[in-house]
Amino acid sequence: MKAVIITVGNEILKGRTVNTNTAHIGSFLTHMGYDVLRNLVVKDDPDEIGWAFETALSVSDLVVSSGGLGPTFDDMTVPSFAKHFNIDLVANQEALSFLRHKYQEQNLQVTPERLKMAMLPAGSIAVKNNVGSAPGVFMELRGKKILILPGVPAEMKDILANASSLIGKGDLFYYEETLHLEGVMESSLAPFVSELMKKYSGKVYIKSHPLGMENNNPRLDVEVSSTGINKKEVEDAVKNAIGEIRDHWKERIGK
Amino acid sequence: MKAVIITVGNEILKGRTVNTNTAHIGSFLTHMGYDVLRNLVVKDDPDEIGWAFETALSVSDLVVSSGGLGPTFDDMTVPSFAKHFNIDLVANQEALSFLRHKYQEQNLQVTPERLKMAMLPAGSIAVKNNVGSAPGVFMELRGKKILILPGVPAEMKDILANASSLIGKGDLFYYEETLHLEGVMESSLAPFVSELMKKYSGKVYIKSHPLGMENNNPRLDVEVSSTGINKKEVEDAVKNAIGEIRDHWKERIGK
Repeated sequence: MKAVIITVGNEILKGRTVNTNTAHIGSFLTHMGYDVLRNLVVKDDPDEIGWAFETALSVSDLVVSSGGLGPTFDDMTVPSFAKHFNIDLVANQEALSFLRHKYQEQNLQVTPERLKMAMLPAGSIAVKNNVGSAPGVFMELRGKKILILPGVPAEMKDILANASSLIGKGDLFYYEETLHLEGVMESSLAPFVSELMKKYSGKVYIKSHPLGMENNNPRLDVEVSSTGINKKEVEDAVKNAIGEIRDHWKERIGK
Repeated sequence: MKAVIITVGNEILKGRTVNTNTAHIGSFLTHMGYDVLRNLVVKDDPDEIGWAFETALSVSDLVVSSGGLGPTFDDMTVPSFAKHFNIDLVANQEALSFLRHKYQEQNLQVTPERLKMAMLPAGSIAVKNNVGSAPGVFMELRGKKILILPGVPAEMKDILANASSLIGKGDLFYYEETLHLEGVMESSLAPFVSELMKKYSGKVYIKSHPLGMENNNPRLDVEVSSTGINKKEVEDAVKNAIGEIRDHWKERIGK
């Protein structure tokens, strides 16, 4: 099952903020058994947000967005999403009572801006936010699942964890191991890795990450991963490939 | 002038690597006078890479990609780009002599995998890489500019700087200031910010970033930015808006 991550926020595109949310969501979904296909980062703009959800839904089974969920005028993910798919925004009772409670706890007035966060797409579920005020939004559309999260990392992480059972497991089992090698350059290893990938005919994915030189010694992380429906086959493929790379490296550096 | 940033790499989508490259490129292009519209992150897959370049070119004047440029089989950005747009890959003489020199310096054999990095799209320019071996690739297509960079951050940054004059300045002047406020919550400020945005009728962009609580005191960064063709107008708009927010905050906390 495929997933697409959407990130909404001018600050990411202008480089003011590094997109750590995608790394967290990507890792979470990969370990849940999803194949994360794309990350679409768009501006705080209704048309761009609509384009992102439309594009994501057309190629995936699950869409998770972060950013643009909150009390300010530039938090436009939910209204833009609803408008694009012609879904009414309705007061969500659970979100309303959650927000009233949050603000009363803090002796804050319940203003229209604050209650805006309780206007959710008809048919959606408010997902609990233990950290901040904006609840997450979960809904099903065109037989696919959608989860809308705020951009503040601590809130995003909390709601994502709370939405686990709504998201559900993907159909894939994912396994990876990383081998750290010293004394060999990425380009020296490349022909062997090419051969190995062919040998495993697409069942393992091998990616090398050069880590630079230390005392004139090149260092390299070789990440071997596999995804599939059979847990044992996936693990065996990774372990066997790691073993072959280790043997080749030992031979090469004369150990 | 609009720009789209493409990021190629499974490791970003799986959350193994945080997408710091987009932050660097986004900031660089914003300060060069471009409006960064989107960031499309795709897998190391020829069809996905083709989709990303096609989509990016259809909405922007400049496309900058990072990732998938190097000696290994999974470095497929250049061949996938060339295939998608039906452009031949030809041996680039500048890239060839640059690579031969690099490898001879390091007493390394010039293997087919290594020379793969000198096979560039016909009509493209090799952009110098002072840090690693893969040169950057610059070309014009459909009246638009394309720059293809490697994913290793130090190499990406070096080549991007070396490509400045090829990229050229965008048509916009960008200016931003950030105001740090304590003792006010994002949701308390929201109505005033909404009014201010309306008052400046889209000429300034105001984004608040809640920084959490310290000693029961909410902290907030308010970023005010403007983009336009007239430098003085852009700067004045930002400074005036910052002044109004500061005054409102002083009134609110009773200073």
